[in-house]
Amino acid sequence: MEQLKMQVPTGAWDYLPIECAAKRKVEDKIRNSFLKSGYSEIETPSFEYYEVFMHDSVPYVQENMMKFFDQKGRILALRPDLTGPIARAAATKLLARQDILRLCYIQNAFGFFNRGIAGKTEFTQAGVELIGKKGADADAEVIALAIGTLRQIGLEGFKIELGQVAYFKGLIEGSGLDEEQTERIRSLVDAKNNVELEYELSRLNIENTKKKALLELGGLFGGREALAQAETLAKSEECRAAVENIREVYDILCDFGYEEYLSIDFGILNNFNYYSGIIFRGISDGIGMPILSGGRYDDLLREFGTDAPATGFAMGVKELLIVLECQGKLAAQREKSIVVRAGKKLLRQAFSYVQELRAQGKRVILELNGSTYDPALFEIRDFAEGEMK
Amino acid sequence: MEQLKMQVPTGAWDYLPIECAAKRKVEDKIRNSFLKSGYSEIETPSFEYYEVFMHDSVPYVQENMMKFFDQKGRILALRPDLTGPIARAAATKLLARQDILRLCYIQNAFGFFNRGIAGKTEFTQAGVELIGKKGADADAEVIALAIGTLRQIGLEGFKIELGQVAYFKGLIEGSGLDEEQTERIRSLVDAKNNVELEYELSRLNIENTKKKALLELGGLFGGREALAQAETLAKSEECRAAVENIREVYDILCDFGYEEYLSIDFGILNNFNYYSGIIFRGISDGIGMPILSGGRYDDLLREFGTDAPATGFAMGVKELLIVLECQGKLAAQREKSIVVRAGKKLLRQAFSYVQELRAQGKRVILELNGSTYDPALFEIRDFAEGEMK
Repeated sequence: MEQLKMQVPTGAWDYLPIECAAKRKVEDKIRNSFLKSGYSEIETPSFEYYEVFMHDSVPYVQENMMKFFDQKGRILALRPDLTGPIARAAATKLLARQDILRLCYIQNAFGFFNRGIAGKTEFTQAGVELIGKKGADADAEVIALAIGTLRQIGLEGFKIELGQVAYFKGLIEGSGLDEEQTERIRSLVDAKNNVELEYELSRLNIENTKKKALLELGGLFGGREALAQAETLAKSEECRAAVENIREVYDILCDFGYEEYLSIDFGILNNFNYYSGIIFRGISDGIGMPILSGGRYDDLLREFGTDAPATGFAMGVKELLIVLECQGKLAAQREKSIVVRAGKKLLRQAFSYVQELRAQGKRVILELNGSTYDPALFEIRDFAEGEMK
Repeated sequence: MEQLKMQVPTGAWDYLPIECAAKRKVEDKIRNSFLKSGYSEIETPSFEYYEVFMHDSVPYVQENMMKFFDQKGRILALRPDLTGPIARAAATKLLARQDILRLCYIQNAFGFFNRGIAGKTEFTQAGVELIGKKGADADAEVIALAIGTLRQIGLEGFKIELGQVAYFKGLIEGSGLDEEQTERIRSLVDAKNNVELEYELSRLNIENTKKKALLELGGLFGGREALAQAETLAKSEECRAAVENIREVYDILCDFGYEEYLSIDFGILNNFNYYSGIIFRGISDGIGMPILSGGRYDDLLREFGTDAPATGFAMGVKELLIVLECQGKLAAQREKSIVVRAGKKLLRQAFSYVQELRAQGKRVILELNGSTYDPALFEIRDFAEGEMK
């Protein structure tokens, strides 16, 4: 027991002063980028009624949410992501006033997830949701915002991989697979685990052309040429529309001058199954997990009583800090605080001297009892009469 | 079930865009004030092992914490305040490097507390902890920081009430009261409920002078004269030292020019029983609950393995927003976003025009498919060729 008292819970951590200051700086830049693009920040509670997350039929999400009871015995869950809560708030409150919502957040999400940074249980996410707009231009807008924001924080060497859930859904459609089988196939494609995928498909009673297409999905990546390949592979209307949507988004982003950041990958099929169209994730040298993920989710808001299309993304702030540090972009310029040492009889004058320095933007400690400070960390000044007004 | 899905949990709420923007502005001012006084921000996890909060023997805190199990069956609790977690982090990590720590935070705390703003279950606290310093000058430093910060955010008509736990403890000492009886007396004094206090005391076997002193505690308030009264009332060494400590703090704060904000009240005995010396709370017109509370807690860090004196306070950010709004200080100057409407063939030029506006600090939406925007909320501009480079 005593031991637990002195520990941080498994998978959680403390941001101590230097790292916390770096985190705050990055968050401020991200927020500023979101706000400048016309997004408004909102804050929802850390926990919601469990029902809010029922859309998440991916088993590991349900099982690994942190749940507890309220005083009336209802189940509360610490939010595993922000998209659900923001969809709730938008559908039940904000869409009554405006048709198009641009919302952003920098908030923590929770869960016993053994994904991402090993064992983490609480993680800060920074993201946007563009609600009430259909179409490639809306998807391109949020992806451009993701790219612009990563550039603003100084990140280099990153790529946005574009995929399409609707293409996968189009392939699967009419194959008679149940939800569990679909989820299994989806996760194997996403993991690019073709050995197991082939075995799994061999046990299923679906058309050979579909099997072949599913096996080729993981190889459908690259630049613009991947779009043509995808069109050849599957000719259903749904698949064609899915490819056409990526192409439009790709074209807009090229017009924005962002081609160098793009890559297409029909094999990415993110974990959350509320996505309905384009999906994307950001990857970067220096970290073996996505730094952001997002996509279109046109079916989610309806669950909360107001139908509206939506698209958005979330960035992992800790992941960004790790990459920035790898790239030497986290200049931990810790401003040296000034310690003004003063005796009790000059208190009044010393205090106004200190207040003046603070108003000039300095970090200043007024020291009255002569405690010692490390001159490597602090600039020491002795306050004497007449030194100041 | 459907109903719960569309609701915010009891006692929690959404900060929608206008309120969230106001909250962020106030938080930024508070953070800036803390940093400028030489405090460094830290962030701890939202939950800790339950053992971290074991010092909180006040029953309603223990019972009303939000608890759940981790995957190994250990109890985790959403933090009811930040002082415990910061004491843990300081004692187990930071005090090894530095003797004096100035730490600050703006974080959420949790609980099924029917205190403060009716039924709230999650609340943002902004506070500081000055660790490793004994003495009135340290207490005066954090109280001056509280006052300076409230002034920075534009609050008017507030007072800081100063009390002394050690004075109460000195009175109680040797009276043979057990923990439960002491807690009952403490809460009745704190509530200024003299009717019940008199009844309660009549049932206890303690000296009449002590009974009389305890009954008079609630009336020991005002300016400097309350100090003399307190000295007359109780002459034990502990009580005298307690009065002397408040006097020193009061004198320093007067030297800082803050006398107008001070009032003394020996009857305030805040809820958390880890306080060991001076305690204080901020009150303001426009809200029937404290806007901040704090005090000295010299015995807490020892529980986490490193002995160190400490003093600090926490402000309720929501409470501050309420008071600021009452005082007409929450100018909700919501900047109007600009909507630049452009056709697809001028995309490249329109995007660089928009990026330039953003770099100038404007909030700008690039609209490609002609969605309509309310001109009361947005400034609409049509982008035409030749308009910009």
